[in-house]
Amino acid sequence: MSSPSWLNPEELPEVKQLSEAECWEALAGERIGRLAVTADDGVDIFPVNFMVNDRELFFRSAPGSKLSAISHSPAVAFETDGVHFLTHWSVVVRGTARRMSDEAEIIDAGIQDLSTMTTSDKWNYVRITPTSVTGISFRRI
Amino acid sequence: MSSPSWLNPEELPEVKQLSEAECWEALAGERIGRLAVTADDGVDIFPVNFMVNDRELFFRSAPGSKLSAISHSPAVAFETDGVHFLTHWSVVVRGTARRMSDEAEIIDAGIQDLSTMTTSDKWNYVRITPTSVTGISFRRI
Repeated sequence: MSSPSWLNPEELPEVKQLSEAECWEALAGERIGRLAVTADDGVDIFPVNFMVNDRELFFRSAPGSKLSAISHSPAVAFETDGVHFLTHWSVVVRGTARRMSDEAEIIDAGIQDLSTMTTSDKWNYVRITPTSVTGISFRRI
Repeated sequence: MSSPSWLNPEELPEVKQLSEAECWEALAGERIGRLAVTADDGVDIFPVNFMVNDRELFFRSAPGSKLSAISHSPAVAFETDGVHFLTHWSVVVRGTARRMSDEAEIIDAGIQDLSTMTTSDKWNYVRITPTSVTGISFRRI
C-alpha cells in the first residue's frame, strides 16, 4: 500500500484534520481499537479487534459488561490510532452499536472471519453504524 | 528497562490478567492513551498524551469538549496499550478526573514538563485519581 499523502511528514502541519475518506483508509489498516461505552457507574473502555465493511465497524464479543452496556446505551465511541514514520494519527468513530441476531446479516458482514485476541466464547457479533467519523494526524513527540 | 515477567511469550497463556503493579509498570512506559468521557449525546473518546506520578494520571488539555465533559461528568475511563514481542497488552484506569487550579498542585504533579501533540493552548492540567486499575496481556494475532 502506498503512503497516503497526509502521512508525508515534510508536508505535515502540527495537527491536521483528516478527511472522512482518509479516516476510512486509516481504519481499514488497523485491527485493534478501543470501544468506549456508557456503564452503570459512568463510562468504560475496552480494547477490541475490529474490522471494517462498507463503512461500518464490526467486532466480536464474549458475553459480559461490554454487551450489557451496549444493550442499555447503544451510543458508543470507538478510537484507533497508529504511527507512520514521524506522524501519529487517531480516528474516532461515534455511532450506534447493535448486537446482530440475524444469521444472514452476520454472514454478509464477514465478521465470522475476524480473528480476536481470545478465540473462545466470542460468538456475539456487534455492528457499529457511524454517526460521525473524525480524525487527526500530528507529529510524533 | 528489563522485560517484565508477564511479557515472556513462552510463559504466556492466551489471555492473562495483569496485577495492579504490572499495570502501573506498563502505564509508566507509555505516553499516549485514550480518554473516554460522558458527553451530552452519549460517550466520547480522545487521544491524550499523559504521564504517571505517584499512581495518578495527568494530562494537559486545550479548552473544549474534553474539559467540558469532565466538569459535567468527572467519572472517566482511560486506556493505553502496547506491543512487546509476541504479546499485546492493554491497561484500563477508571477514575475521577479533575482540572487542577492550584499552582502548587500543578507544579508538584510535574505535568508542566509533559510534551503534548500540540504545543499551543494546552494550559489546562487534569488529574485522574483512579478507582480501579485493570489490565490484560494476550498473544498478538
